[in-house]
Amino acid sequence: MSERLCRKRGASVVAQKLVARAVFDHNLICSGDRILIAVSGGKDSTVLAMMLSLLRPALKVEYQLAGLHISTDFCSCCKRQELIKRLESWGIPFEDVFVPVVGRLKAGRKMNCYWCSTQRRAELIAYALSHNFNKIALGHHLDDNIETYFMNITAAGKLCGMPALLRYNKYPLALIRPLSYLEERQVVACADETGLLQSACTCPYGRNSQRVSVRKKIADLCGGSGAVKRRMVKAFDEEALCRMKLN
Amino acid sequence: MSERLCRKRGASVVAQKLVARAVFDHNLICSGDRILIAVSGGKDSTVLAMMLSLLRPALKVEYQLAGLHISTDFCSCCKRQELIKRLESWGIPFEDVFVPVVGRLKAGRKMNCYWCSTQRRAELIAYALSHNFNKIALGHHLDDNIETYFMNITAAGKLCGMPALLRYNKYPLALIRPLSYLEERQVVACADETGLLQSACTCPYGRNSQRVSVRKKIADLCGGSGAVKRRMVKAFDEEALCRMKLN
Repeated sequence: MSERLCRKRGASVVAQKLVARAVFDHNLICSGDRILIAVSGGKDSTVLAMMLSLLRPALKVEYQLAGLHISTDFCSCCKRQELIKRLESWGIPFEDVFVPVVGRLKAGRKMNCYWCSTQRRAELIAYALSHNFNKIALGHHLDDNIETYFMNITAAGKLCGMPALLRYNKYPLALIRPLSYLEERQVVACADETGLLQSACTCPYGRNSQRVSVRKKIADLCGGSGAVKRRMVKAFDEEALCRMKLN
Repeated sequence: MSERLCRKRGASVVAQKLVARAVFDHNLICSGDRILIAVSGGKDSTVLAMMLSLLRPALKVEYQLAGLHISTDFCSCCKRQELIKRLESWGIPFEDVFVPVVGRLKAGRKMNCYWCSTQRRAELIAYALSHNFNKIALGHHLDDNIETYFMNITAAGKLCGMPALLRYNKYPLALIRPLSYLEERQVVACADETGLLQSACTCPYGRNSQRVSVRKKIADLCGGSGAVKRRMVKAFDEEALCRMKLN
Protein backbone atom coordinates (compact mmCIF):
# COMPACT_ATOMS: atom_id res chain seq x y z
CA MET A 1 0.00 0.00 0.00
CA SER A 2 2.72 2.46 1.04
CA GLU A 3 4.89 1.50 -1.95
CA ARG A 4 1.98 2.10 -4.29
CA LEU A 5 1.52 5.50 -2.70
CA CYS A 6 5.22 6.18 -3.15
CA ARG A 7 5.04 5.26 -6.85
CA LYS A 8 2.11 7.59 -7.33
CA ARG A 9 4.10 10.47 -5.93
CA GLY A 10 7.13 9.57 -8.04
CA ALA A 11 9.49 7.42 -6.01
CA SER A 12 12.53 8.77 -7.81
CA VAL A 13 11.53 12.38 -7.09
CA VAL A 14 10.98 11.52 -3.42
CA ALA A 15 14.39 9.82 -3.29
CA GLN A 16 16.14 12.78 -4.94
CA LYS A 17 14.59 15.20 -2.43
CA LEU A 18 15.64 13.06 0.54
CA VAL A 19 19.18 12.57 -0.79
CA ALA A 20 19.55 16.30 -1.49
CA ARG A 21 18.31 17.08 2.03
CA ALA A 22 20.82 14.66 3.59
CA VAL A 23 23.63 16.13 1.46
CA PHE A 24 22.75 19.69 2.52
CA ASP A 25 22.05 18.89 6.20
CA HIS A 26 25.35 17.07 6.70
CA ASN A 27 27.45 18.92 4.11
CA LEU A 28 28.26 15.58 2.46
CA ILE A 29 29.56 16.91 -0.88
CA CYS A 30 31.86 19.88 -1.46
CA SER A 31 33.30 21.46 -4.56
CA GLY A 32 36.24 19.47 -5.94
CA ASP A 33 35.35 16.23 -4.14
CA ARG A 34 36.50 12.96 -5.69
CA ILE A 35 33.90 10.44 -4.58
CA LEU A 36 34.34 6.68 -4.83
CA ILE A 37 30.96 4.91 -4.79
CA ALA A 38 30.98 1.36 -3.43
CA VAL A 39 28.84 -0.43 -6.04
CA SER A 40 27.91 -4.02 -5.27
CA GLY A 41 25.39 -4.36 -8.06
CA GLY A 42 22.56 -4.43 -5.50
CA LYS A 43 19.58 -2.07 -5.41
CA ASP A 44 20.93 0.25 -2.68
CA SER A 45 24.29 1.15 -4.22
CA THR A 46 22.81 1.32 -7.74
CA VAL A 47 20.17 3.81 -6.57
CA LEU A 48 22.94 5.71 -4.76
CA ALA A 49 25.02 5.96 -7.96
CA MET A 50 21.99 7.14 -9.94
CA MET A 51 21.11 9.76 -7.31
CA LEU A 52 24.64 11.18 -7.16
CA SER A 53 24.61 11.49 -10.92
CA LEU A 54 21.10 12.94 -11.23
CA LEU A 55 21.64 15.47 -8.47
CA ARG A 56 24.69 17.16 -10.03
CA PRO A 57 22.70 20.19 -11.33
CA ALA A 58 20.68 20.57 -8.11
CA LEU A 59 23.70 20.41 -5.80
CA LYS A 60 25.48 23.18 -7.73
CA VAL A 61 28.98 21.97 -6.92
CA GLU A 62 31.56 20.27 -9.14
CA TYR A 63 32.49 16.76 -8.08
CA GLN A 64 33.89 13.61 -9.67
CA LEU A 65 32.39 10.14 -9.31
CA ALA A 66 33.70 6.62 -9.84
CA GLY A 67 32.13 3.27 -8.98
CA LEU A 68 34.28 0.58 -7.40
CA HIS A 69 33.00 -2.99 -7.44
CA ILE A 70 34.67 -5.54 -5.20
CA SER A 71 34.52 -9.07 -6.58
CA THR A 72 35.15 -11.85 -4.11
CA ASP A 73 35.85 -15.56 -4.16
CA PHE A 74 32.24 -16.35 -3.20
CA CYS A 75 30.32 -13.68 -5.08
CA SER A 76 30.69 -11.31 -7.98
CA CYS A 77 28.01 -9.15 -9.53
CA CYS A 78 25.88 -11.56 -11.55
CA LYS A 79 24.65 -8.72 -13.76
CA ARG A 80 27.98 -7.04 -14.21
CA GLN A 81 27.55 -5.89 -17.82
CA GLU A 82 24.21 -4.26 -17.05
CA LEU A 83 25.77 -2.49 -14.07
CA ILE A 84 28.70 -1.21 -16.17
CA LYS A 85 26.31 0.09 -18.85
CA ARG A 86 24.13 1.84 -16.34
CA LEU A 87 27.04 3.55 -14.63
CA GLU A 88 28.35 4.61 -18.04
CA SER A 89 24.97 6.12 -18.91
CA TRP A 90 25.22 8.18 -15.70
CA GLY A 91 28.77 9.30 -16.52
CA ILE A 92 30.34 7.14 -13.83
CA PRO A 93 33.45 5.08 -14.71
CA PHE A 94 33.45 1.51 -13.38
CA GLU A 95 36.44 -0.01 -11.64
CA ASP A 96 36.85 -3.47 -10.20
CA VAL A 97 39.13 -5.20 -7.71
CA PHE A 98 39.21 -8.79 -6.54
CA VAL A 99 39.40 -9.65 -2.83
CA PRO A 100 39.67 -13.29 -1.66
CA VAL A 101 37.33 -12.80 1.31
CA VAL A 102 36.88 -16.53 1.98
CA GLY A 103 40.54 -17.22 1.19
CA ARG A 104 41.65 -14.75 3.87
CA LEU A 105 39.68 -16.57 6.59
CA LYS A 106 41.86 -18.10 9.29
CA ALA A 107 41.67 -21.89 9.68
CA GLY A 108 38.46 -23.01 11.36
CA ARG A 109 36.69 -19.67 10.87
CA LYS A 110 33.41 -19.52 8.93
CA MET A 111 32.32 -16.84 6.51
CA ASN A 112 30.12 -14.18 8.02
CA CYS A 113 28.81 -10.73 7.10
CA TYR A 114 31.02 -8.93 9.61
CA TRP A 115 34.20 -10.48 8.20
CA CYS A 116 33.19 -9.76 4.62
CA SER A 117 32.32 -6.13 5.34
CA THR A 118 35.62 -5.43 7.15
CA GLN A 119 37.59 -6.93 4.24
CA ARG A 120 35.67 -4.87 1.72
CA ARG A 121 35.97 -1.70 3.79
CA ALA A 122 39.76 -2.12 4.07
CA GLU A 123 39.98 -2.56 0.30
CA LEU A 124 37.77 0.45 -0.37
CA ILE A 125 39.95 2.62 1.87
CA ALA A 126 43.19 1.37 0.29
CA TYR A 127 41.84 1.93 -3.21
CA ALA A 128 40.48 5.41 -2.40
CA LEU A 129 43.80 6.51 -0.86
CA SER A 130 45.92 5.19 -3.70
CA HIS A 131 43.66 6.77 -6.35
CA ASN A 132 43.27 10.18 -4.68
CA PHE A 133 39.63 9.93 -3.72
CA ASN A 134 38.73 12.00 -0.64
CA LYS A 135 35.28 10.47 -0.04
CA ILE A 136 33.73 7.00 -0.12
CA ALA A 137 29.95 6.89 -0.68
CA LEU A 138 28.06 3.93 0.81
CA GLY A 139 24.49 2.86 0.06
CA HIS A 140 23.30 2.40 3.65
CA HIS A 141 19.77 3.69 4.24
CA LEU A 142 17.73 4.62 7.31
CA ASP A 143 16.67 1.02 8.04
CA ASP A 144 20.29 -0.19 7.90
CA ASN A 145 21.21 2.54 10.38
CA ILE A 146 18.42 1.81 12.87
CA GLU A 147 19.14 -1.94 12.70
CA THR A 148 22.84 -1.34 13.35
CA TYR A 149 22.03 0.88 16.31
CA PHE A 150 19.79 -1.78 17.83
CA MET A 151 22.26 -4.61 17.24
CA ASN A 152 25.00 -2.59 18.93
CA ILE A 153 22.74 -1.41 21.76
CA THR A 154 21.42 -4.87 22.59
CA ALA A 155 24.61 -6.86 21.98
CA ALA A 156 27.36 -4.47 23.10
CA GLY A 157 25.60 -1.80 25.17
CA LYS A 158 27.03 0.84 22.82
CA LEU A 159 25.11 3.53 20.98
CA CYS A 160 26.89 3.10 17.70
CA GLY A 161 25.28 3.41 14.27
CA MET A 162 26.09 4.55 10.73
CA PRO A 163 26.42 8.33 10.62
CA ALA A 164 25.67 10.19 7.38
CA LEU A 165 29.19 11.65 7.56
CA LEU A 166 32.21 10.03 9.20
CA ARG A 167 35.65 11.60 8.91
CA TYR A 168 38.59 9.28 9.52
CA ASN A 169 41.20 10.65 11.88
CA LYS A 170 44.05 8.65 10.43
CA TYR A 171 43.26 9.09 6.73
CA PRO A 172 42.46 12.18 4.59
CA LEU A 173 39.15 10.49 3.87
CA ALA A 174 35.47 10.62 4.83
CA LEU A 175 32.64 8.10 4.53
CA ILE A 176 29.35 9.56 3.31
CA ARG A 177 25.91 7.93 3.30
CA PRO A 178 23.65 10.03 1.07
CA LEU A 179 20.72 7.54 1.42
CA SER A 180 20.58 8.13 5.20
CA TYR A 181 17.10 9.69 5.09
CA LEU A 182 15.53 7.00 2.88
CA GLU A 183 13.68 4.01 4.27
CA GLU A 184 14.39 0.75 2.47
CA ARG A 185 10.86 0.74 1.04
CA GLN A 186 11.64 4.09 -0.60
CA VAL A 187 14.87 2.75 -2.11
CA VAL A 188 12.95 -0.29 -3.41
CA ALA A 189 10.19 1.91 -4.85
CA CYS A 190 12.77 4.10 -6.61
CA ALA A 191 14.66 1.07 -7.98
CA ASP A 192 11.37 -0.41 -9.16
CA GLU A 193 10.15 2.78 -10.82
CA THR A 194 13.41 3.32 -12.69
CA GLY A 195 13.76 -0.31 -13.82
CA LEU A 196 16.84 -1.01 -11.68
CA LEU A 197 15.22 -3.57 -9.42
CA GLN A 198 14.96 -6.26 -12.08
CA SER A 199 18.69 -6.21 -12.77
CA ALA A 200 19.89 -5.77 -9.18
CA CYS A 201 21.76 -8.72 -7.76
CA THR A 202 21.84 -9.84 -4.14
CA CYS A 203 24.51 -11.44 -2.01
CA PRO A 204 24.10 -15.25 -1.77
CA TYR A 205 24.53 -14.99 2.00
CA GLY A 206 21.49 -12.70 1.98
CA ARG A 207 20.80 -10.65 5.05
CA ASN A 208 22.13 -12.33 8.13
CA SER A 209 19.58 -13.77 10.51
CA GLN A 210 20.47 -11.39 13.35
CA ARG A 211 19.65 -8.41 11.14
CA VAL A 212 16.42 -10.00 9.90
CA SER A 213 15.36 -10.71 13.48
CA VAL A 214 16.14 -7.21 14.75
CA ARG A 215 14.35 -5.71 11.73
CA LYS A 216 11.11 -7.45 12.71
CA LYS A 217 11.42 -6.24 16.29
CA ILE A 218 12.02 -2.66 15.17
CA ALA A 219 8.97 -2.86 12.89
CA ASP A 220 6.88 -3.89 15.92
CA LEU A 221 8.38 -1.14 18.05
CA CYS A 222 7.73 1.55 15.44
CA GLY A 223 4.34 0.19 14.40
CA GLY A 224 5.56 0.42 10.78
CA SER A 225 5.77 4.22 11.01
CA GLY A 226 8.54 5.89 9.02
CA ALA A 227 8.11 9.04 11.14
CA VAL A 228 8.81 7.09 14.34
CA LYS A 229 11.89 5.49 12.76
CA ARG A 230 13.17 8.92 11.72
CA ARG A 231 12.68 10.27 15.26
CA MET A 232 14.56 7.30 16.73
CA VAL A 233 17.50 7.73 14.37
CA LYS A 234 17.49 11.49 15.02
CA ALA A 235 17.71 10.86 18.77
CA PHE A 236 20.54 8.34 18.36
CA ASP A 237 22.46 10.38 15.78
CA GLU A 238 22.31 13.54 17.90
CA GLU A 239 23.84 11.70 20.84
CA ALA A 240 26.50 10.07 18.68
CA LEU A 241 27.39 13.57 17.44
CA CYS A 242 27.69 14.76 21.05
CA ARG A 243 30.09 11.90 21.76
CA MET A 244 32.20 12.73 18.70
CA LYS A 245 32.47 16.35 19.92
CA LEU A 246 33.65 15.14 23.33
CA ASN A 247 36.28 12.76 21.95
CA MET B 1 9.77 -18.95 36.74
CA SER B 2 12.33 -16.17 37.04
CA GLU B 3 10.59 -14.78 40.12
CA ARG B 4 10.73 -18.20 41.74
CA LEU B 5 14.43 -18.33 40.95
CA CYS B 6 14.85 -14.89 42.46
CA ARG B 7 13.07 -15.99 45.64
CA LYS B 8 15.33 -18.99 45.93
CA ARG B 9 18.40 -16.78 45.82
CA GLY B 10 16.84 -14.36 48.33
CA ALA B 11 15.16 -11.53 46.47
CA SER B 12 15.89 -9.06 49.25
CA VAL B 13 19.60 -9.93 49.22
CA VAL B 14 19.71 -9.53 45.42
CA ALA B 15 17.95 -6.16 45.73
CA GLN B 16 20.35 -4.93 48.42
CA LYS B 17 23.35 -5.86 46.30
CA LEU B 18 21.97 -4.06 43.24
CA VAL B 19 21.03 -0.96 45.24
CA ALA B 20 24.46 -0.86 46.91
CA ARG B 21 26.13 -1.18 43.50
CA ALA B 22 24.06 1.68 42.05
CA VAL B 23 24.86 3.83 45.12
CA PHE B 24 28.60 3.16 44.77
CA ASP B 25 28.73 3.43 40.95
CA HIS B 26 26.97 6.79 40.85
CA ASN B 27 28.05 8.12 44.26
CA LEU B 28 24.39 8.58 45.18
CA ILE B 29 24.80 8.97 48.94
CA CYS B 30 27.45 10.98 50.79
CA SER B 31 28.16 11.56 54.44
CA GLY B 32 25.80 14.12 55.97
CA ASP B 33 23.12 13.78 53.26
CA ARG B 34 19.55 14.58 54.23
CA ILE B 35 17.46 12.40 51.92
CA LEU B 36 13.75 12.86 51.34
CA ILE B 37 12.17 9.64 50.03
CA ALA B 38 9.06 10.08 47.87
CA VAL B 39 6.77 7.41 49.36
CA SER B 40 3.52 6.77 47.52
CA GLY B 41 2.60 3.63 49.44
CA GLY B 42 3.28 1.55 46.32
CA LYS B 43 5.72 -1.37 46.08
CA ASP B 44 8.57 0.57 44.43
CA SER B 45 8.93 3.41 46.91
CA THR B 46 8.30 1.11 49.90
CA VAL B 47 11.09 -1.23 48.75
CA LEU B 48 13.27 1.86 48.21
CA ALA B 49 12.65 3.07 51.79
CA MET B 50 13.43 -0.39 53.18
CA MET B 51 16.64 -0.64 51.14
CA LEU B 52 17.93 2.77 52.20
CA SER B 53 17.30 1.82 55.82
CA LEU B 54 18.77 -1.72 55.62
CA LEU B 55 21.88 -0.56 53.77
CA ARG B 56 23.03 1.96 56.41
CA PRO B 57 25.72 -0.37 57.87
CA ALA B 58 26.96 -1.52 54.43
CA LEU B 59 27.23 2.00 52.97
CA LYS B 60 29.37 3.17 55.92
CA VAL B 61 28.26 6.79 55.70
CA GLU B 62 25.98 8.77 58.01
CA TYR B 63 22.80 10.02 56.37
CA GLN B 64 19.31 11.04 57.45
CA LEU B 65 16.09 9.77 55.90
CA ALA B 66 12.49 10.99 55.87
CA GLY B 67 9.52 9.77 53.84
CA LEU B 68 7.21 12.30 52.22
CA HIS B 69 3.79 11.15 51.08
CA ILE B 70 1.80 13.38 48.78
CA SER B 71 -1.95 12.98 49.15
CA THR B 72 -4.09 14.25 46.32
CA ASP B 73 -7.73 15.01 45.63
CA PHE B 74 -8.09 11.78 43.65
CA CYS B 75 -5.88 9.39 45.57
CA SER B 76 -4.33 8.97 48.97
CA CYS B 77 -2.48 5.94 50.28
CA CYS B 78 -5.21 3.43 51.04
CA LYS B 79 -2.97 1.62 53.53
CA ARG B 80 -1.57 4.69 55.16
CA GLN B 81 -1.34 3.36 58.74
CA GLU B 82 0.57 0.27 57.60
CA LEU B 83 2.96 2.47 55.63
CA ILE B 84 3.56 4.76 58.63
CA LYS B 85 4.26 1.73 60.88
CA ARG B 86 6.65 0.20 58.40
CA LEU B 87 8.61 3.41 57.94
CA GLU B 88 8.74 3.81 61.72
CA SER B 89 10.15 0.27 62.08
CA TRP B 90 12.91 1.28 59.64
CA GLY B 91 13.65 4.48 61.56
CA ILE B 92 12.16 6.74 58.89
CA PRO B 93 9.83 9.56 59.98
CA PHE B 94 6.68 9.98 57.87
CA GLU B 95 5.53 13.33 56.59
CA ASP B 96 2.51 14.20 54.50
CA VAL B 97 1.34 17.07 52.31
CA PHE B 98 -1.86 17.52 50.36
CA VAL B 99 -1.80 18.66 46.71
CA PRO B 100 -5.06 19.29 44.80
CA VAL B 101 -3.76 17.75 41.55
CA VAL B 102 -7.20 17.59 39.90
CA GLY B 103 -8.22 20.94 41.39
CA ARG B 104 -5.22 22.64 39.75
CA LEU B 105 -6.23 21.47 36.25
CA LYS B 106 -7.16 24.27 33.89
CA ALA B 107 -10.73 24.27 32.52
CA GLY B 108 -11.26 21.60 29.87
CA ARG B 109 -8.08 19.68 30.72
CA LYS B 110 -8.27 16.04 31.76
CA MET B 111 -6.23 14.31 34.45
CA ASN B 112 -3.19 12.50 33.13
CA CYS B 113 -0.03 10.91 34.51
CA TYR B 114 2.26 13.64 33.17
CA TRP B 115 0.29 16.41 34.88
CA CYS B 116 0.16 14.51 38.16
CA SER B 117 3.89 13.76 38.16
CA THR B 118 4.89 17.37 37.46
CA GLN B 119 2.63 18.60 40.31
CA ARG B 120 4.11 16.05 42.70
CA ARG B 121 7.67 16.79 41.60
CA ALA B 122 7.18 20.53 42.19
CA GLU B 123 5.82 19.81 45.66
CA LEU B 124 8.67 17.42 46.48
CA ILE B 125 11.23 20.04 45.47
CA ALA B 126 9.52 22.82 47.44
CA TYR B 127 9.26 20.61 50.52
CA ALA B 128 12.87 19.44 50.27
CA LEU B 129 14.19 22.99 49.92
CA SER B 130 12.14 24.36 52.80
CA HIS B 131 13.11 21.49 55.11
CA ASN B 132 16.84 21.45 54.27
CA PHE B 133 16.97 18.16 52.40
CA ASN B 134 19.75 18.02 49.80
CA LYS B 135 18.55 14.87 48.02
CA ILE B 136 15.23 13.44 46.88
CA ALA B 137 15.14 9.64 46.42
CA LEU B 138 12.69 8.27 43.83
CA GLY B 139 11.62 4.63 43.39
CA HIS B 140 12.09 4.39 39.61
CA HIS B 141 13.61 1.10 38.49
CA LEU B 142 15.35 -0.13 35.34
CA ASP B 143 12.08 -0.89 33.50
CA ASP B 144 10.74 2.60 34.26
CA ASN B 145 13.94 4.05 32.83
CA ILE B 146 13.95 2.00 29.62
CA GLU B 147 10.24 2.74 29.04
CA THR B 148 10.83 6.46 29.48
CA TYR B 149 13.74 6.36 27.05
CA PHE B 150 11.63 4.64 24.42
CA MET B 151 8.65 6.94 24.90
CA ASN B 152 10.90 9.98 24.47
CA ILE B 153 12.83 8.46 21.54
CA THR B 154 9.73 7.47 19.58
CA ALA B 155 7.52 10.45 20.45
CA ALA B 156 10.00 13.34 20.67
CA GLY B 157 13.17 12.08 18.96
CA LYS B 158 15.09 12.82 22.18
CA LEU B 159 17.33 10.45 24.09
CA CYS B 160 16.04 11.36 27.51
CA GLY B 161 15.58 8.93 30.40
CA MET B 162 15.79 8.82 34.18
CA PRO B 163 19.42 9.02 35.31
CA ALA B 164 20.45 7.44 38.60
CA LEU B 165 21.78 10.86 39.67
CA LEU B 166 20.50 14.23 38.49
CA ARG B 167 21.81 17.46 40.00
CA TYR B 168 19.60 20.50 39.61
CA ASN B 169 21.40 23.60 38.37
CA LYS B 170 19.00 26.04 39.95
CA TYR B 171 18.56 24.33 43.34
CA PRO B 172 21.05 22.95 45.89
CA LEU B 173 19.38 19.61 45.33
CA ALA B 174 19.87 16.28 43.53
CA LEU B 175 17.47 13.53 42.49
CA ILE B 176 18.70 10.00 43.18
CA ARG B 177 17.25 6.71 41.93
CA PRO B 178 18.84 3.91 43.97
CA LEU B 179 16.63 1.22 42.32
CA SER B 180 18.14 2.01 38.88
CA TYR B 181 19.74 -1.43 38.51
CA LEU B 182 16.66 -3.44 39.54
CA GLU B 183 14.18 -4.80 37.04
CA GLU B 184 10.55 -4.49 38.09
CA ARG B 185 10.33 -8.27 38.57
CA GLN B 186 13.16 -8.00 41.10
CA VAL B 187 11.35 -5.22 43.00
CA VAL B 188 8.16 -7.32 43.01
CA ALA B 189 10.06 -10.41 44.21
CA CYS B 190 11.66 -8.41 47.02
CA ALA B 191 8.31 -6.84 48.03
CA ASP B 192 6.71 -10.29 47.97
CA GLU B 193 9.44 -11.96 50.01
CA THR B 194 9.39 -9.27 52.68
CA GLY B 195 5.58 -9.14 52.94
CA LEU B 196 5.31 -5.60 51.53
CA LEU B 197 3.44 -6.55 48.39
CA GLN B 198 0.18 -7.39 50.17
CA SER B 199 -0.07 -3.95 51.74
CA ALA B 200 1.18 -1.90 48.78
CA CYS B 201 -1.41 0.33 47.19
CA THR B 202 -1.61 1.32 43.53
CA CYS B 203 -2.76 4.48 41.81
CA PRO B 204 -6.38 4.22 40.58
CA TYR B 205 -5.24 5.57 37.20
CA GLY B 206 -2.92 2.57 36.97
CA ARG B 207 -0.14 2.65 34.45
CA ASN B 208 -1.07 4.75 31.50
CA SER B 209 -1.78 2.91 28.27
CA GLN B 210 1.20 4.42 26.41
CA ARG B 211 3.57 3.00 29.03
CA VAL B 212 1.84 -0.40 28.99
CA SER B 213 2.08 -0.53 25.20
CA VAL B 214 5.76 0.46 25.07
CA ARG B 215 6.56 -2.06 27.82
CA LYS B 216 5.22 -4.91 25.67
CA LYS B 217 7.27 -3.75 22.69
CA ILE B 218 10.44 -3.53 24.78
CA ALA B 219 9.81 -7.05 26.11
CA ASP B 220 9.63 -8.29 22.50
CA LEU B 221 12.76 -6.39 21.54
CA CYS B 222 14.76 -7.72 24.50
CA GLY B 223 13.30 -11.24 24.31
CA GLY B 224 12.60 -10.95 28.05
CA SER B 225 16.33 -10.79 28.82
CA GLY B 226 17.35 -8.65 31.78
CA ALA B 227 20.94 -8.61 30.47
CA VAL B 228 19.82 -7.08 27.17
CA LYS B 229 17.75 -4.46 29.01
CA ARG B 230 20.75 -3.56 31.14
CA ARG B 231 22.95 -3.18 28.04
CA MET B 232 20.37 -0.93 26.40
CA VAL B 233 20.09 1.31 29.43
CA LYS B 234 23.88 1.39 29.76
CA ALA B 235 24.20 2.56 26.14
CA PHE B 236 21.54 5.25 26.60
CA ASP B 237 22.81 6.41 30.00
CA GLU B 238 26.39 6.73 28.77
CA GLU B 239 25.28 8.97 25.94
CA ALA B 240 23.06 11.03 28.22
CA LEU B 241 26.09 11.52 30.47
CA CYS B 242 28.13 12.68 27.45
CA ARG B 243 25.45 15.25 26.67
CA MET B 244 25.40 16.49 30.27
CA LYS B 245 29.18 16.99 30.12
CA LEU B 246 28.82 19.00 26.91
CA ASN B 247 26.07 21.29 28.26
